[in-house]
Formats: sequence, structure tokens, C-alpha cells
Amino acid sequence: MNSGKSVTIDGLTIGGRSPVRVESMLKTSLADIAACISEAEELFGCGCELVRVSLPELELAENLKKLVKNSPVPLMADIHFNPGLAIAALEAGCPSIRINPGNMGNGEGLAKVVSLASERGAVIRIGANGGSLNKRQLETAAGDRAAALATAVGEQVRLLRGEGFHDIIISAKSSDVMETVRANALLAKKYEYPIHIGITEAGPGISGAIKGAAGIALMLAQGIGNTIRVSLTAPGKDEIEAGYHILRSLGMRSRGVDLISCPTCGRKLIDVMRLVEYVQRILPKDLPENFSMAVMGCEVNGPQEAAQADLGVAGTADGFVLFKKGVPFTTGTIDTLPELLKTIMQDITA
Amino acid sequence: MNSGKSVTIDGLTIGGRSPVRVESMLKTSLADIAACISEAEELFGCGCELVRVSLPELELAENLKKLVKNSPVPLMADIHFNPGLAIAALEAGCPSIRINPGNMGNGEGLAKVVSLASERGAVIRIGANGGSLNKRQLETAAGDRAAALATAVGEQVRLLRGEGFHDIIISAKSSDVMETVRANALLAKKYEYPIHIGITEAGPGISGAIKGAAGIALMLAQGIGNTIRVSLTAPGKDEIEAGYHILRSLGMRSRGVDLISCPTCGRKLIDVMRLVEYVQRILPKDLPENFSMAVMGCEVNGPQEAAQADLGVAGTADGFVLFKKGVPFTTGTIDTLPELLKTIMQDITA
Repeated sequence: MNSGKSVTIDGLTIGGRSPVRVESMLKTSLADIAACISEAEELFGCGCELVRVSLPELELAENLKKLVKNSPVPLMADIHFNPGLAIAALEAGCPSIRINPGNMGNGEGLAKVVSLASERGAVIRIGANGGSLNKRQLETAAGDRAAALATAVGEQVRLLRGEGFHDIIISAKSSDVMETVRANALLAKKYEYPIHIGITEAGPGISGAIKGAAGIALMLAQGIGNTIRVSLTAPGKDEIEAGYHILRSLGMRSRGVDLISCPTCGRKLIDVMRLVEYVQRILPKDLPENFSMAVMGCEVNGPQEAAQADLGVAGTADGFVLFKKGVPFTTGTIDTLPELLKTIMQDITA
Repeated sequence: MNSGKSVTIDGLTIGGRSPVRVESMLKTSLADIAACISEAEELFGCGCELVRVSLPELELAENLKKLVKNSPVPLMADIHFNPGLAIAALEAGCPSIRINPGNMGNGEGLAKVVSLASERGAVIRIGANGGSLNKRQLETAAGDRAAALATAVGEQVRLLRGEGFHDIIISAKSSDVMETVRANALLAKKYEYPIHIGITEAGPGISGAIKGAAGIALMLAQGIGNTIRVSLTAPGKDEIEAGYHILRSLGMRSRGVDLISCPTCGRKLIDVMRLVEYVQRILPKDLPENFSMAVMGCEVNGPQEAAQADLGVAGTADGFVLFKKGVPFTTGTIDTLPELLKTIMQDITA
């Protein structure tokens, strides 16, 4: 995205000229290592490039070690409060940790963490969250929560720099979109470190995806953000798919299918909603990058949209016309369409 | 949004200093007038402020007249190709029409439409759609589809201005987010007319909402857009809810509940996903504007996020703590929470 500093986690470069990365966090507790591995594998299958995992107790470090060995996705251990946990994560071989240096007590613990991270070549993500600002930070910013977030990040940056550490990702997140956007604009002006962006605790389903998309799009359009997480109260694969939808919308990544379908109106000649549901069900996972499919209800915008897509269907008075790469391929009655689409999809991915 | 021109449709002001409006389009055919009226009523209940309805045939004008009389939401008739349909819509009392002057044949038909619109005080929305650009427009723009969209709108503006008509809403939509954003930036620079914005044929569910949110947020953040439609291959009420989610995210409108909930991780002490599903089910429709509710899984950001919301729940080792307007209100075991929330919601809306 920008050409600032970059860091590398287990072979994954973040920042510099790398594409914007898409990450998530395991929703499973490390206590269930088998479930963690299978969640990581599922996320990998959807294109997850980095996954955080919470390490809340020392007893789970052994399982983290197993996860590091078995996860196809590079890991970042999520640590709060206790420097001992950060050390345990690094000793378990975790290539990156996310800490809040401000809540790690005296400097000695932090110095040990940083020295071990240096030794191991590990990356440290630091950052502030709207839910963890302290009274002093809020008072200093005179109630401007965006400024308080940026200040909180600045304090953490100073602590790590004080230890001579620079393999840093920074982040400032809040559940308020515009507060997050303003905080990150302040960070981007001041630092060259890669920035992790997202709207935290955005909530469930469509409302969460909208908050995340609005906020992340506003930041990326300003050139801010090197790795994203769409926080959703939903399975991690939904977060990854949402991430790629955002990046594809902005023309930044091309993973996933661009499904163009009309909202339908009184004009529709075919049952677009049912057809789109069907198409979503049968869409193969291994379609070529940037593949686009259009499903259009009528002849107003239908034929042109359908003709622009890799594969397009437009409703007609008699049934449908199907386009392949802009060329009318066949027509038919609507009852023959599902089987035809299935065959075509099989051909494309064969 | 901006302080350009404004128009008024059936009492609804669009543009000038009015709030950004949220609109949709009936998915029902005018052939079924009872279903159209009930769809309009449902949309009104969700906050829909303007609704388009397709008038594809003259025989349906009588039903449009009935809809004009019975719809609680101001109407805009969606007309293509035939000036006779536009005249019929205006004669049916429709306070606004959406036409494409470029596809209305010779100037005489258009002159009649405009003269009748003037007489009736009706508003005309004109605009270009990525699916309806002609060869000449594309060639003139040397393949720059955003420029071609802006050119197409400009041609239509000139036709209406030529008839001395200025109660205009303009719009340029495509299924490509960045193309739409660029086209609208060109329009906003050139015209003071209110602009209708959206990403057309954005598709179904979460991917459609993300495309719409990314595009609409990018335009609104630049001060572009006076009325929005989130086109979704989904019921119209989803479009309206999505519209308000976007505007609430940007701090522009406050309708609807701000549901903050954590994405959950290995740290979670309560089943956040199930609880959020429950909360969504029981949330009353008549909560105060700007009401926020937080559901958080653990003690890291939980208590602070929960305390900032109007109503907040954070998971604890023993169950939950519930906050009302920032003040801890009660604690309990998790099995008692659903009933408690229900009672509280009833109290709030009583």
C-alpha cells in the first residue's frame, strides 16, 4: 500500500509494497488444540494470511507450540497484562505477538520480552483499543478519543523504541468508525510502521460488515492500512471473505468471485433472488482470480452487465440469455438454467 | 450534506442542508397493487424516505395512481424508453420520475414530459448506469468508464436544461465501486444538483452490503451524495437497514441500534454469538435514536465498551455484569440474562 517500513512474519511480508493482508483471529480456545488446528486450516482455505490466537494462561503455551507447528497460517499470539505470557509465546516459536506494553507493569518484564523477540526475529504488534484507554490518556486528549488512541499508541511505540526494537506493527481500533479513521490518520502522519486496521467489535452479520467496510474503505482510500481484520461476531471465515470483498471492491486484491446481481424490481422477468442463491451454492471455490458473474432480471441493464462479466445471465420474456466472456452463448427456458450453470462451472474449473 | 441546490418530492427535501436520505425500490410489480402497497408500508416502517417503482407498461398507470394515493412513502416512477410512460406517471400524480432522456427518442416526447413535470411541480431524476453506456460515450471517454458515466449524465442534464427544467436529481452508478466513486467526483465538481448515490447491482447479502458500504462511504466522506440506495439482491427492508447502518457508521444519521459486539476469541467467557442472536431477536423496533448496546465476551475490553453503551453486557468468570448508561447495574449467572434483557428492553420502550 504505502512504501513505509515492512515486517515479515513467518514468510509473510506486511507493509512496504506488499498487498494489503487479510487476517482473522481464532475463535477457539487453545485448550482445544485439535479444534484450533482445524479452524486455522479452514481459515487458510479461505485466504487468511495471518491469524491471532489468544494466550491467556501459561498452561496453554504447550498447545501454542503445537499450533505453531501445525497451523498453515502464520500466527500472532494475543497477550494481555502478563509479560510472562509473551515470553512463553515466543519460546513456543510463535513468530509474532500482540501486546499492550502499557499494561505490562514495570519495564523489566517488557525489556525481557523485547530482547527475546529480537533474538527470535519476531514481530510485535502494539496498539490501542477504544475499550482500553485509561483516564489519563482521555484527560490529556480533552475528550477527543481519536487523539487519545493515537497518544496511547505513541506511548507504546516509545517504550519499544526505547528498547531499540523496530519490527513493529501499530494499530488503533475503536467500535466507532470515524474515531478509528481519525486516529489512524494521526498515526499514518507520524509513523512509517505498518498499520493494522479494522473497526473493533463491529458486531454481527450485515451491520458489522457495513461498519467494517465503511471504516476500512475510508482508511485504505487514504493510503492507510497494510493489514486488515474485519471483526465480526461470526465465524472467522466470514471475516476473511468480508476482508477480500472490501479489497476487491477497492480494486486492491482479486480473490473471490465478483457476483453482480440486480436488486430486482417490478420489471424482473426471472426470479433473480432464487437464482442468485442457487449460484452462490454452486460457485466452486477454485474459480480463477477476478472471475465475475452477473445475474440480471431484465433487459434494461441486463444484457450489458451480463456481457461485461465472465459469465452472465439476463432474464428475457421467454427465459434467459447466457453470455460467456461477453459473447451470447445460449438461450433457454428458465427451468434449464440451473443444470446448465452447473455444467459450465465444472468446465471452468476442470 | 452539501449546500447546493435542493428539490422537494411530496414534502421530502433532498439536497441543500437536508440529511442524507435513504431510499429503495419496490421489488413487486405494479400489476399486484395490494402487494405494492404493503411493501411500501413495510419500507416506511423501516425508515424508507423515497421509493422507486417501475412503470414498464401503460396499462399499469391506473395502479400507479392507486399507489400514489396509498403509499406512506413518496414515490418515484422508474421509466425507460417511452416518454408516454413518463407522461402517464405524472398524470397518475407521481411526484417524481426517473428517466433516461437519452433513450427517449426524438426531442418532442421529452419536451412534453418536461413541460408536464414543470406544471405538476414534479422532480426528475436523470442518470447513467454502467450497464447502459452507449458505444459513442465509451469511445469518447477513450475507455475510461467513469468519465463516460459523467459524460452520459452531462448529456442528459443539457437536454433538461435546454427545456428550462432544473428540479433535477442526478446519478451515476456502476457495479464497480471505484468507477462509481470517480464518476461521482466528476459530477460533484461540475453540478450543484442533488446527487443520488449507490453501487448498482451490488449483489446479495454481505458481499453486496460491503460493496455498497465501501462505495457510499467513500463518496459521502468526500461530501458527495444527498440520497442513497444500497442495491441488494434482498428484500427492500434490508436495503433500508443497510442504508441507515452506513449513515450511522459515518455519524450522519442516528436511526437504528448501534450493536457493538466482540468477534469472540479463545478468551471469551460467555457465548457471545448466541447472546447476540438473542439480542437481535428481542431488540424492540422503537428504541430511542442512537441507542447503543454492547455484548462483550471477556474482561479485556468488555467492561469499558459495555460501560460506554446505553446498555452493556460483559462476560465474567462467574457469569456477566450488566451496565446501564455506564453504571454497573447488576451481575448474575448467564442463564438469567435473556429474561433480564427482555424486561429491561420492555422498560426502555414503555
